[in-house]
Amino acid sequence: MIVFKVQPGEVLGDGADLHGIRMDCGGRGICGKCRIVCRPSAHLAPPTEAERNHLIPAELEAGHRLACQVRFVGPVEVTVPDASLDPAAAMGKDGLPPLMDPDPAVGRCFLDRAAPPRILEGKATGLIEWLARRASATGMPGVRFTDLPLARQLSRPGAAEQDLTLVVHRRRGVTAVWPGHRPRRLGMALDVGTTTLAAYLCDLATGGTVAGLAALNPQRSIGEDVISRIAHCDRQPDGLEALQGLVRDGFNRLMAALLARAGVSAEDVDAVTVAANPTMAHLLAGLHPHTIGVAPYLPAARRFPPLTAASLGLELSPNTPVEMFPLVSGFVGGDTVAAVLADGTHRRDAATLLVDIGTNGEIVLGRGGGLWATSCATGPALEGARISSGMRAVPGAVDRVTFEAGRIRYHVMGGADRPPLGLCGSGIIDAVWALRRAGALGRDGRFDPQHPGVVCDANGRGCRFVLAAADRAGGGAEIAVTQQDVRQVQLAKAAVAVGIRFLMQRAGVTRVDRTVLTGAFGARFDWRSAVGIGMLPAPEVIGAVQPRDNLAGVGAVMALIDRRKAGQVRRIQDGMQFVEMAGDPGFNAQFVGALAFPDQAGQGD
Amino acid sequence: MIVFKVQPGEVLGDGADLHGIRMDCGGRGICGKCRIVCRPSAHLAPPTEAERNHLIPAELEAGHRLACQVRFVGPVEVTVPDASLDPAAAMGKDGLPPLMDPDPAVGRCFLDRAAPPRILEGKATGLIEWLARRASATGMPGVRFTDLPLARQLSRPGAAEQDLTLVVHRRRGVTAVWPGHRPRRLGMALDVGTTTLAAYLCDLATGGTVAGLAALNPQRSIGEDVISRIAHCDRQPDGLEALQGLVRDGFNRLMAALLARAGVSAEDVDAVTVAANPTMAHLLAGLHPHTIGVAPYLPAARRFPPLTAASLGLELSPNTPVEMFPLVSGFVGGDTVAAVLADGTHRRDAATLLVDIGTNGEIVLGRGGGLWATSCATGPALEGARISSGMRAVPGAVDRVTFEAGRIRYHVMGGADRPPLGLCGSGIIDAVWALRRAGALGRDGRFDPQHPGVVCDANGRGCRFVLAAADRAGGGAEIAVTQQDVRQVQLAKAAVAVGIRFLMQRAGVTRVDRTVLTGAFGARFDWRSAVGIGMLPAPEVIGAVQPRDNLAGVGAVMALIDRRKAGQVRRIQDGMQFVEMAGDPGFNAQFVGALAFPDQAGQGD
Repeated sequence: MIVFKVQPGEVLGDGADLHGIRMDCGGRGICGKCRIVCRPSAHLAPPTEAERNHLIPAELEAGHRLACQVRFVGPVEVTVPDASLDPAAAMGKDGLPPLMDPDPAVGRCFLDRAAPPRILEGKATGLIEWLARRASATGMPGVRFTDLPLARQLSRPGAAEQDLTLVVHRRRGVTAVWPGHRPRRLGMALDVGTTTLAAYLCDLATGGTVAGLAALNPQRSIGEDVISRIAHCDRQPDGLEALQGLVRDGFNRLMAALLARAGVSAEDVDAVTVAANPTMAHLLAGLHPHTIGVAPYLPAARRFPPLTAASLGLELSPNTPVEMFPLVSGFVGGDTVAAVLADGTHRRDAATLLVDIGTNGEIVLGRGGGLWATSCATGPALEGARISSGMRAVPGAVDRVTFEAGRIRYHVMGGADRPPLGLCGSGIIDAVWALRRAGALGRDGRFDPQHPGVVCDANGRGCRFVLAAADRAGGGAEIAVTQQDVRQVQLAKAAVAVGIRFLMQRAGVTRVDRTVLTGAFGARFDWRSAVGIGMLPAPEVIGAVQPRDNLAGVGAVMALIDRRKAGQVRRIQDGMQFVEMAGDPGFNAQFVGALAFPDQAGQGD
Repeated sequence: MIVFKVQPGEVLGDGADLHGIRMDCGGRGICGKCRIVCRPSAHLAPPTEAERNHLIPAELEAGHRLACQVRFVGPVEVTVPDASLDPAAAMGKDGLPPLMDPDPAVGRCFLDRAAPPRILEGKATGLIEWLARRASATGMPGVRFTDLPLARQLSRPGAAEQDLTLVVHRRRGVTAVWPGHRPRRLGMALDVGTTTLAAYLCDLATGGTVAGLAALNPQRSIGEDVISRIAHCDRQPDGLEALQGLVRDGFNRLMAALLARAGVSAEDVDAVTVAANPTMAHLLAGLHPHTIGVAPYLPAARRFPPLTAASLGLELSPNTPVEMFPLVSGFVGGDTVAAVLADGTHRRDAATLLVDIGTNGEIVLGRGGGLWATSCATGPALEGARISSGMRAVPGAVDRVTFEAGRIRYHVMGGADRPPLGLCGSGIIDAVWALRRAGALGRDGRFDPQHPGVVCDANGRGCRFVLAAADRAGGGAEIAVTQQDVRQVQLAKAAVAVGIRFLMQRAGVTRVDRTVLTGAFGARFDWRSAVGIGMLPAPEVIGAVQPRDNLAGVGAVMALIDRRKAGQVRRIQDGMQFVEMAGDPGFNAQFVGALAFPDQAGQGD
C-alpha cells in the first residue's frame, strides 16, 4: 500500500505508474487495474464513463476511482491498495546498474559531543574551525565550511554541543550537518530524457544501486519533442519557468517515491548526478534553450556553474551537490557523455559505434581513443509517437512483428493472450521490415495495393496494412501500419543511417568492431530489423551488436559512486569531435538517398 | 539638498548626521540647526516642545520639523535643505586614506556586440563559454561563469546579443554582467565598530578614495557595548536577526548616501571589504555571537565562508564579493588585523605598540615580525558614555581640559564661544589628569573635599568637580566630573595599562620604539594626559607617539584596492599570538594595582 497527496488540478493520467500504480492498458481506462482510494471524495470530479464501467456506485461514493481517469478539484490523499501496485514499475534488479567499487566525492564523518574549544598556546580558535579540525582529524578530506547558512546554523547556542554528523564533499566542503550519528550515505543519479525521467537511488557506502524508478517527463503536456518545448520557451513569457517547474516537480515526486520505497529520508542523500540531453539540462537548470532551436544549434552552456539541490529546486538538503554531465553540442548532451563513460567507448581499442535512439538520435563513434559524435532528428516515431497506432512500450503494446512461413505475426507485451492496444517503437521497425519481406512495401516505401492485407481507398491511395482488426484489438480500433507511418519510419531511419555514415567517413573507418544500442528505445528493438530497413549498416560493417539498457543512467550512477570518473567525463567531453551534418553540403543528397529501403537480398541501398 | 524616504516608526534622532544633517547640539533639540521638510505632514506625530520653540505654527503646518525630534507615523519623504547640511559629516579629504597603487582582485572587461558563435573544427561551444572566451581574450584573468542566476540571465534571448560589461573577480569568476559599456569601477570599504559605522567609496581604477561617511551604529538602540548586544541575542528569540537587520540597514543607508553624494550607482560597486570587531563581524554575517560572551570568549568563526552582498543583505549587485577581515580571537577582530595591515606593524623592525581604544581596547605589540595581541574591557567611558556629563565628540563637547597657571580651563569643539554641552572621551582623560595636577584628586582617585572647586554633600561624600555651572552650560545643567566618573576612568585606564604590560612581558621587551594610537577615540585624546593618569607607560617606554585616524578603515581600503594585501592579511592573522589576560593568575592583582594614579612627579605607579 502506498499513500500520497495530490493537489487540485494535478492529473495522474498515464503517468500514474510514477506512483507504482499498474498501467496495464497504458492509461486508457480499459483494464481497470489502477484502482485507488481518494479522500475526501468530495474533492473529486464526477466519475468518467470508464470509472462507472469498472466501479459500482457505492465504491464511487466511497472515493474509489481509476488513477488514469480521476480529476481532483481539491487536495486529496490517495491510497494505492497492494492489488493496484505494479511490481514492474520499479526497475527490476536486473535493470539496475551493477555493484561498483565505491569512492564517492562526498562522505560523512561523526563528531561526538566534546568539551568546547580552548585557547591553546596563544592561538584562539572559532567554534566552527574547531569542528572542522576535529572532523579533519578523523581522516576526512576536504573539511571546510564554505556555506554561510550552515555556519549560521552551527553558531546557534547548543548547535555544536551535541553529537554531529558532517556531510563533506571533497571540493565543496561541508554540505550538511545533522544532529546525532547518521551513517547512511545515499546518492541519486538522474537521467533526464525528453520522454522519460529516471532516478536511481544508490548506496554510496557499498556502491550498489538500491532502487530505480522511471516516469514520464511531465513536460510532455507542453510538447512531445525538444523543439516544441524550446518554442514554448520562446513564445510564452513564463514558458521556461513552467517547463522548469514541470521537470523539477516530476523529479521531486520520483525521488520522494523512491525514498519512500527504500524507507529512507531525503536527508540521507549526499550527492546527485544528472545525465540529460542538452535541452532537458537547460530546462532543469533554468537556462533558456533558445539557441538550441536555431542554427548553429548551440547550447547556452556546455558546462554548468556549480549546482545544488536548492538552486534546482530539488527537495533534498539544500547544499546537496548536483553534478550535471557536460554537454557536447546543442543536440549531443550529458546523456551521451554518460553513455560513453558507462560503455568505456573512450578507452577501448575496438572501434565502437554507440547508437542512442530516443526522440532524438545521438551517435558516437570511438576508435583508438578518438571520439566523434553527431545527432540526428529521428522524431518521436521510433518511440511510438506520431504513428497512427503508436503507443509507449507498456503492457498491451505490440513489441515484436515477424514474417514467418508467409505470415505476419505479432507479439503483445505482458502476455500472449492479451488483446493488442497499439504499436510501440520496436514493433514499428519490426512491422516495416516484415512488410518489406512480405513484399507489401516497395523499396521506395510505397504499399503495394495488390498485396493481400494491404487496404487502400478507392483510388489506390491511403493504403494501410491491418495488423489487428478492430474486433481483435483491445482498444476497439484496428491496429494498422499506414503509408504515413512508413514515411515517418523512413525519415527516422534515414537520419540515423546518414549520421552513422558521416561519422564513419570522418573517423576514416569502413567498419567497426562492435555496435552498442542504448537509449529508452534503442536497447529494445531487434537490430536485425533495423539492418533490414537500412537504419543500421550491414552486419559485417557494424560488428558485434550489444543492446545495453539505459547506458546514460548507468554512467550517471558511475559518476555518483566513483569520483575518479569526473576526470574521465571531462576528457570525454573535451575530446569529442562534433560532426555537424546540417551544415554539410552533401547532407541533403545523402539523406534523400537514404530514404529508400535496402534491397531485400542484401543490405545496400 | 538631500531627499530620502523614511518609514513609520523610524527615528532619526541623534543619528540624523547619517543623512548629512547638522547636529550641532548632539541631537538634543537645542540648536535648531537640523531643520528638515517632511511630506506629507499628516504622517508626523505632533511637534515636540523643542520643535515648537524653533518653528512657527505655519512652518509646522507645512511639515517643517527638527530631524532630531520628529516622529513618523506614516511613510514620509524627507527633504534636507542645504542650510541644514553639515559639510563636516562627510569625511574631509584629509581624513581619507591616501592614493594607493591599484591592483584590485576584481576588474571589468567589455565585449562589443558580435556575431554569435559557430561550430569550429568539430568543437561546438556554449553561448556563455563563448562570452567567457572572448572576455579572456581581452587579457582579463579569471573569467569563469560560476553563478547560476547569472548564467540564467545571459541565456535569455537577446541578453548576449548586445554590448556587455563583465565584472570579473580573479578567484570567484564573473560576478555581474551589465548591458553596454560601463567602465566605472568602484569599491566599498566598511569599518564596523560597536559605536560607529564607516564606509569609504574607492575608485578601483585610480586607487583613490572618493568619499567617506560615518554614522552611529543603529544597534546602539539595543545596547551600548558588545556584551549587551550578545545578551540580547541570547535572550530574544529573534535578537540576532534584529541586530543583523540594524547594522545591515545602517550600512545600506550609509552606502546609499555615499553613492548619492558621489553621483554613482550601486551597480558601479564591484567589491566590498569589511573590517569589523568580532561581535560586529558575527552580527553582520548573521552568526550567533554567544560563544564570545562566555569564557573562553571565542568566536563562532575566525574566517568566514565566502560572502556576497546578497548573503549579507547589502543593497549592491547580488554577487558583489565581500571580503571580511579574519578575526584573531573573540575580542581581537578584523579591525585590529586591518589596523596592523595599514600601519605595517608586521613588517617593521621597530618595536611598535598599536593601541586601539574604543568601547573595547585592542592592543598589539609587534617586534621583528612577531605579533602579540590582547584585548581589554575599557567600557564605554573613554568614548564619553556612562560618564555623568558624557557625550560623543561632536560640536559642543568639551574635548580638551588643561591645568595652567593654577587654573583648570576647557575647550569646546566647534567654536570658542560655544557653551559647553558635555564631556567627550578626550576631555574626560584631560580632566582627570588636570584634576590630579591641581591636587583635587588623590593617587587613589578620591576627591579632596577641601580642594576649591570640589563640591561634596554634607557628610563629605558624593564629591564632584564642577567644570561649568548650569548657567554657563549649553544644556542647562552643570558639567561636572563626579567621583563615579573618576572610578570609570580608573577602571578603563587600568585595563589598558595592564594589557600593555602583559604584551611587553610576553614579547620580552621593556620599551618600544613607537606607539600608534588609533580607533574612533584613540587617535583624538592627548597622549600626555593618558601617560599622566597611567593609562600609557612613561614616555621613555612608549617611544615616539603617532596618532593615526581610523587605521582599520585605511586597512580595509588597502585590501580593497590591492589584492596582494590578502596574503599579508592571512599572515597577520595566522602569526598573531593571542595573550589571554583573563585566564592569567596574576591578572587580578595587577589590575587592582593599576587602578591607582601614578605619582604626580613621575609616571611610575
